[in-house]
Amino acid sequence: MTDEPVTSPEGMRDGLVRVRLDLAYEGTDFSGWARQPQRRTVQATLEQALAQVLRLSDQPRTTVAGRTDAGVHAVGQVAHVDVAGSALEPAGGPARLLRRLNGVLPPDVRVHGATAAPEGFDARFAALSRRYRYRVCDVVPDPLRRRDTLAVPRRLTDEAMARATAALLGEHDFAAYCRQREGASSVRELQAFTWKRDLDGVLVADLLADGFCHSMVRALVGACLAVGEGRRSEGWPARVLAGRLRDSGVLVAAAHGLTLVGVDYPEPADLAARVALTRRHRPPLAGGAHADA
Amino acid sequence: MTDEPVTSPEGMRDGLVRVRLDLAYEGTDFSGWARQPQRRTVQATLEQALAQVLRLSDQPRTTVAGRTDAGVHAVGQVAHVDVAGSALEPAGGPARLLRRLNGVLPPDVRVHGATAAPEGFDARFAALSRRYRYRVCDVVPDPLRRRDTLAVPRRLTDEAMARATAALLGEHDFAAYCRQREGASSVRELQAFTWKRDLDGVLVADLLADGFCHSMVRALVGACLAVGEGRRSEGWPARVLAGRLRDSGVLVAAAHGLTLVGVDYPEPADLAARVALTRRHRPPLAGGAHADA
Repeated sequence: MTDEPVTSPEGMRDGLVRVRLDLAYEGTDFSGWARQPQRRTVQATLEQALAQVLRLSDQPRTTVAGRTDAGVHAVGQVAHVDVAGSALEPAGGPARLLRRLNGVLPPDVRVHGATAAPEGFDARFAALSRRYRYRVCDVVPDPLRRRDTLAVPRRLTDEAMARATAALLGEHDFAAYCRQREGASSVRELQAFTWKRDLDGVLVADLLADGFCHSMVRALVGACLAVGEGRRSEGWPARVLAGRLRDSGVLVAAAHGLTLVGVDYPEPADLAARVALTRRHRPPLAGGAHADA
Repeated sequence: MTDEPVTSPEGMRDGLVRVRLDLAYEGTDFSGWARQPQRRTVQATLEQALAQVLRLSDQPRTTVAGRTDAGVHAVGQVAHVDVAGSALEPAGGPARLLRRLNGVLPPDVRVHGATAAPEGFDARFAALSRRYRYRVCDVVPDPLRRRDTLAVPRRLTDEAMARATAALLGEHDFAAYCRQREGASSVRELQAFTWKRDLDGVLVADLLADGFCHSMVRALVGACLAVGEGRRSEGWPARVLAGRLRDSGVLVAAAHGLTLVGVDYPEPADLAARVALTRRHRPPLAGGAHADA
């Protein structure tokens, strides 16, 4: 993971237009969102496409809401990029930008929205919450969904998994479920965490939080899987949380079952206040505080 | 396409057990169901797995309900295979066969049922009907579903497509929508053909018939796409049908949007009568009369 340059609204130069990009991607063949030398990443792929379509000699830098790990998918990722109006207008403005980007992007990344962002918008700091989904199949898996569904060999006790999540809800220090980063807070508010079976029998976890620390979703899912397999009791995930220390019994669930489903933002009038609040609460931002998956 | 040996219930030798196999596969990396020299096919992959698990020196021959083309997927394919009881018993019977087959099959094929077939069962001749689904995305496609969804660049008029199907229902000679085969009848009863949008905005066609001729589903879908794109009128697909001749205006839709969803069989007591009826109505069976997709 590399640090991303943070483009704050205050720092916007004259003539720059902030464009909000809504994205979907299959993570299978990407080394995650964040740029890394010599790796195929979503960020680098997107920035290269932006440079091509906007005829920029330097690739523009994007800022993203959820910095997904290698193998993690997204259907509702949000990013922003600041582009000189002089480059954007010949490209036909944000509306035509969408079609042109999809024309040059590989089929495992699609842009489904490209709009001029409202005043104060920041894909990362203005986000109110992130929603993730994890799919687990404990029956015979559908070959067509094998790339976004974890297959487990034995039947899981889904009622126990659903009950285990209740005690995790609310604001806690999720240090026990995070890959720790120097100086980064691991306090998060987990607003929803449910396990349900879909019509095909696939177990689907839906998680909502103001933000997730690095590997937090997959560690929480891993703890639930231990409950579902009968290796741990229903109360164990909450006890691990209270201990605030990584527990070797928590196995981080495989990346390919995880998908970033969406990111929520406040109304335009409340964007600036939200950005200020996020910056105050997570001061030492070395790029890690919002990373997740 | 090669001819398959037909194993009729009457021809069963003593000691053979007929096993019904319910299958799902992603067609992307297969040259269709039917065995072909030098090609990776679902049939060859399955028969090889059966030989391995049952320790047979000769690969057993399977008979299938829907002989899908290259690139076509299945979630509810049905096949049968006749196996000597002396080979099946050491393998733990049909129940354990399922787990052992999935242990050796590649991840793009899964067996989700392996059961001793009732008296008179024949995956091909006892089938009452086959159900196919075709997915078309005229909005920004989900990268995770790109392998089983046709992406089209322009918005389709789905109401017109839905209306165009009404006149196609019932028993007709579908010669205009079939790749003709010498001596094979193209009379079929199309029992249902609907177009609906799912929650993601994807257009989904559901088709049900006693059987489909070769390329019939994809030709019917192709005719509807011409209506949805505004290139043809709502009444055109029915006029093509009445003409009983291939119309160069009908483009066969791409294989990867098509999935065999399921196969319906009568109650066990009615299996033998159904097999006799199918054989009477489609006499010159060179393997083509039931092929589809």
